[in-house]
Amino acid sequence: EYANYFSRQKNTNIRLTLPVVCFVWQIAMIILFGVFIRYDEESDTHWVETKAHDNITSDIENDFYFRYPSFQDVHVMIFVGFGFLMTFLKRYSFGAVGFNFLVASFGLQWALLMQGWFHSLDPQTGKIFIGVESLINADFCVAGCLIAYGAVLGKVSPVQLLVMTLFGVTLFAVEEYIILNLLHARDAGGSMVIHTFGGYYGLTISWVLYRPNLNQSKRMQGSVYHSDIFAMIGTLFLWMFWPSFNSAITDHGDGQHRAAINTYLCLASTVLTTVAISSLSQKTGKLDMVHIQNSTLAGGVALGTAAEFMISPYGALIVGFFCGIISTMGYIFISPFLEKTLKIQDTCGIHNLHAMPGVIGGIVGAITAAAASESVYGKQGLINTFDFTGDFKDRTVLTQGGYQAAGMCVSIVFGVVGGAIVGSILRLPIWGDPADENCFDDEVYWEVSAVHNTTTGWCHCL
Amino acid sequence: EYANYFSRQKNTNIRLTLPVVCFVWQIAMIILFGVFIRYDEESDTHWVETKAHDNITSDIENDFYFRYPSFQDVHVMIFVGFGFLMTFLKRYSFGAVGFNFLVASFGLQWALLMQGWFHSLDPQTGKIFIGVESLINADFCVAGCLIAYGAVLGKVSPVQLLVMTLFGVTLFAVEEYIILNLLHARDAGGSMVIHTFGGYYGLTISWVLYRPNLNQSKRMQGSVYHSDIFAMIGTLFLWMFWPSFNSAITDHGDGQHRAAINTYLCLASTVLTTVAISSLSQKTGKLDMVHIQNSTLAGGVALGTAAEFMISPYGALIVGFFCGIISTMGYIFISPFLEKTLKIQDTCGIHNLHAMPGVIGGIVGAITAAAASESVYGKQGLINTFDFTGDFKDRTVLTQGGYQAAGMCVSIVFGVVGGAIVGSILRLPIWGDPADENCFDDEVYWEVSAVHNTTTGWCHCL
Amino acid sequence: EYANYFSRQKNTNIRLTLPVVCFVWQIAMIILFGVFIRYDEESDTHWVETKAHDNITSDIENDFYFRYPSFQDVHVMIFVGFGFLMTFLKRYSFGAVGFNFLVASFGLQWALLMQGWFHSLDPQTGKIFIGVESLINADFCVAGCLIAYGAVLGKVSPVQLLVMTLFGVTLFAVEEYIILNLLHARDAGGSMVIHTFGGYYGLTISWVLYRPNLNQSKRMQGSVYHSDIFAMIGTLFLWMFWPSFNSAITDHGDGQHRAAINTYLCLASTVLTTVAISSLSQKTGKLDMVHIQNSTLAGGVALGTAAEFMISPYGALIVGFFCGIISTMGYIFISPFLEKTLKIQDTCGIHNLHAMPGVIGGIVGAITAAAASESVYGKQGLINTFDFTGDFKDRTVLTQGGYQAAGMCVSIVFGVVGGAIVGSILRLPIWGDPADENCFDDEVYWEVSAVHNTTTGWCHCL
Repeated sequence: EYANYFSRQKNTNIRLTLPVVCFVWQIAMIILFGVFIRYDEESDTHWVETKAHDNITSDIENDFYFRYPSFQDVHVMIFVGFGFLMTFLKRYSFGAVGFNFLVASFGLQWALLMQGWFHSLDPQTGKIFIGVESLINADFCVAGCLIAYGAVLGKVSPVQLLVMTLFGVTLFAVEEYIILNLLHARDAGGSMVIHTFGGYYGLTISWVLYRPNLNQSKRMQGSVYHSDIFAMIGTLFLWMFWPSFNSAITDHGDGQHRAAINTYLCLASTVLTTVAISSLSQKTGKLDMVHIQNSTLAGGVALGTAAEFMISPYGALIVGFFCGIISTMGYIFISPFLEKTLKIQDTCGIHNLHAMPGVIGGIVGAITAAAASESVYGKQGLINTFDFTGDFKDRTVLTQGGYQAAGMCVSIVFGVVGGAIVGSILRLPIWGDPADENCFDDEVYWEVSAVHNTTTGWCHCL
Repeated sequence: EYANYFSRQKNTNIRLTLPVVCFVWQIAMIILFGVFIRYDEESDTHWVETKAHDNITSDIENDFYFRYPSFQDVHVMIFVGFGFLMTFLKRYSFGAVGFNFLVASFGLQWALLMQGWFHSLDPQTGKIFIGVESLINADFCVAGCLIAYGAVLGKVSPVQLLVMTLFGVTLFAVEEYIILNLLHARDAGGSMVIHTFGGYYGLTISWVLYRPNLNQSKRMQGSVYHSDIFAMIGTLFLWMFWPSFNSAITDHGDGQHRAAINTYLCLASTVLTTVAISSLSQKTGKLDMVHIQNSTLAGGVALGTAAEFMISPYGALIVGFFCGIISTMGYIFISPFLEKTLKIQDTCGIHNLHAMPGVIGGIVGAITAAAASESVYGKQGLINTFDFTGDFKDRTVLTQGGYQAAGMCVSIVFGVVGGAIVGSILRLPIWGDPADENCFDDEVYWEVSAVHNTTTGWCHCL
Repeated sequence: EYANYFSRQKNTNIRLTLPVVCFVWQIAMIILFGVFIRYDEESDTHWVETKAHDNITSDIENDFYFRYPSFQDVHVMIFVGFGFLMTFLKRYSFGAVGFNFLVASFGLQWALLMQGWFHSLDPQTGKIFIGVESLINADFCVAGCLIAYGAVLGKVSPVQLLVMTLFGVTLFAVEEYIILNLLHARDAGGSMVIHTFGGYYGLTISWVLYRPNLNQSKRMQGSVYHSDIFAMIGTLFLWMFWPSFNSAITDHGDGQHRAAINTYLCLASTVLTTVAISSLSQKTGKLDMVHIQNSTLAGGVALGTAAEFMISPYGALIVGFFCGIISTMGYIFISPFLEKTLKIQDTCGIHNLHAMPGVIGGIVGAITAAAASESVYGKQGLINTFDFTGDFKDRTVLTQGGYQAAGMCVSIVFGVVGGAIVGSILRLPIWGDPADENCFDDEVYWEVSAVHNTTTGWCHCL
């Protein structure tokens, strides 16, 4: 009879669509990987010949040792960080961590292909050669889609999430190609490419999928004590490993080193101002877990572009300082406004955690780039940091600043336009999304073992 | 009166046995370490002389920097991964994570000795020289025993677990010596040596310890909402770090690099087919947490042997594809069959997560080895990958494939025969194991602070 | 009416003080960083010139690659390890993990300044140059303050914690300077500098803040089932990553390698004796979660000084063996004595986990140093390990042992005297600390979403 209740208005039966999508897409991945994907020269058994040829004296020079620890940190952010951050809802933790797992696992495969075609397709062989840096980039690409998931958490079916990810990864690869390759903007930690795009992509989808009667599932919104602690696992792993995120694909040596230091400092500063604003917002100065779980991370987002620049330690602190304030005020003032006035229902508040700090990050990056100078960077240092080589060897820092700003606009446009199109696709009545009164409830898509008494509201723990 | 209730049929008082075993065995470890274990040349203060002697120009060439990040990932898998994966039971989380902690801490010490005696006893000095690779191998050895724990979770006492570990590590070291040294099979991620052996070892023990009246503790079996989320912590850390597991002891350079890439891809593929089969198995397409927690990991198990080979990226995806299907179907069809027909009670379903995927991994490894060629691997690459040096320099890939298959048989035989013997020892009525009606209940071995009302079944949270 | 109830005796409104402290101190940090803190030569874009100048052939020689993986492990210990270890209380998990987050984020900034001024202020430029090792040291410094937090957990306001941290970091930098620079003692893992100091600092503060009527909040003390499992997340991440903690700033090469091995072994041994004593202490041999969560870590603390020495593998096991026993017996016998007789209320039992094992670690370090010999270490190895260079090139190992012991005394004195002074400051009635009956209750400082019925004591989970 419970199943009937769920399907009163909408059919949430995904027994056909979900397996079909999973199987067909996975088989497609296998075929495409068979045609296109190969090991790069550092992960191929011919590495021994490459070493001899390139006069490399030690295996430690393999890029694996430069990037694998950072890769694993990023990997933890994607699966535990994003997954657990979204477990805060009292009865949607399975969906948070489980669908995050599914979406990321599909997305990273598709990302290897899409990013490969756009960034590293070998013209001679027609193959994509992958190594540890490709894995990091795939995880990054997935991050954009997981950010978008935050806006629609609890309101969509897993099939819709997979569709969102298919298109999201595709759009990501294109905007990334435009921003990084055509505009030659720098964005190592993805303030623009990942966070701004992912944020506006998710928000626009949520706007298209607006549910006027969502208050029917009000009893399911919000957290309980233990779900808030689970969410803190996500927060902390994101926070701790963000220095690895922002430094994972920066230049070897000082590039990775500096990006890690800057992000470490920026995030510390964000925590203090988040706490300050959160406390100010309550009558007796009590703190709000929503702010602590989310706004403390805004500094990492905002330093995604500039982390590898010589923004200087105090510059990083300043960025963090303002991001903590703006993000927390976003949760207090802007989110209610977005929902009431703009009809954007943003479950996790990704506008405050990703979209807005992403834009700030783009602006900070543009300004920092434009203000770069040989006296601070050194002649070669400036060339290395902004990659002023090849076609771009005569670019000035001011021009670079302009292209950085242009890059940010590209990411916003791709997010909004892409989100509008994908949102429209997701409105088709074939994806098995839940009725308004069943949103934020794991029972729609999961076998939930514990009986809980819905009349009294007490949960059955044993 | 509660204590009386527990001891009605069986005496679960372990106040004598547990401390005695812990103290005596730990003292034995200290004595044996004093006699046998020394730092190897890379962890000894004489490293400065070794460097000069071997013309090593930089400290970064120390094996520590090649393997320590992977070691720490493996370490997390052993203690958090295995420990939390088993917390899914509603009222056995203390036992899951606590006994896992105890067993692993003892096992790794005993493994350093056993593996040392078999693999690296210096004939001149009679000493075992340890470094970071020894620590990884010790953790690997412990993994075999923790897999076995999964089959008997909730049904044995901590003393029995320690006995299982003592013999398990011993058997492990011998089978590992036969497979890796005598047969010269390759098994870097332990599909055979760790998972097949550990799986059959645990299943056979569980078969010997069969409890016909286990349904008396039925109310304690199964999960509750929050225990399932705790288990997902274990799942995710295992899943994320499995690339490190399979690459931790492979060859420096391309070997580690390739093993990580293959495992990363294989596991992503497994997630999609696990979700597909799980959804297919329920009337309305709902997902089952048991499948998501366990079967998503089967790909990592099955690539344990072949991860370092040139299985190619799409090959890794194919392995993952089938493992997700087989493992999930195992939970749906095979586990009930094993319990009803073969009288094997497998609490965590290790048959589906370790034994079966381990065998698949052995087969995949044998086939991939037999199909290896100089055209794909390069002349030196082939020699490096299969270590065709010394006594084995004339071995062909076909022969190697045969020895790989032989290795798999050895691991099964050791698991089954060893499990039968150890199971018989564990049936002695001296180990303090719980009565049927007290299985899966932490109150038998732990001071549980929260009062929970057994008549109403509501838990007392405050 | 609930808010009234809280403020009956004490005003816990921190809406003014907390934001002011956060803002003012963070702005001070920004100004001081602007004046003093710069990138060091390995994280500056001029690294390319440094490389050329110093004839460094590869970017992999950048200190980042030697220490960043260890840094991230330490970072996890600080934020997840310490944070979650303190979540064991049934209703103070927000405060545990949240205030830990706040305090550490402020402390690491202040530590970079304080440690910079004392250890690495460049006399020519008047600047402090930071790199990855500075970040590790800042995290270490914070660890001392988080240890102290354990003693006062649940009884102080976040403002008090920030004040404790401000003074704690200051005292830490001074005692560290005296111990490491003036006395030239070795203490890579901080048995003395971190654990002994932090332990006595916290205990003395707790003694000054003694609350005779703390039993009024007795219903809030102790754990519930799930809070104990959350705490195990903290325990395990501390336990697993302690080898990284003790090896993070030791010498490149064998120094880091050996410190990791020693700590790994020592901690394994500690687990077995902790379990043994815990089981012995209960009538039917049941285990106590408090012991498993805490005493299993004592070995890591006690090897903080000697981890980099040639204590030998069995020596590490012996240290762990005794620490497990002593720490667990501390929880059983000494903590009640401290509370009843000495009026020290130690919420987390830091006396047993940090203060006592820290002192043991200091003694072990002094003895091991005094017993060092050229025959074991090698001539150059001895010089490297104890840094017998410059002013200290003629120091003998016996003298070194004496200075190690002197260092331990310094850390105790700084902890006790500093704690007494800071405790007195914290007694001022302006910090918003809770009344006795509201201790250990998150509702004082946090918006707690879940309604829980205080009359029946049942929690409202949905």
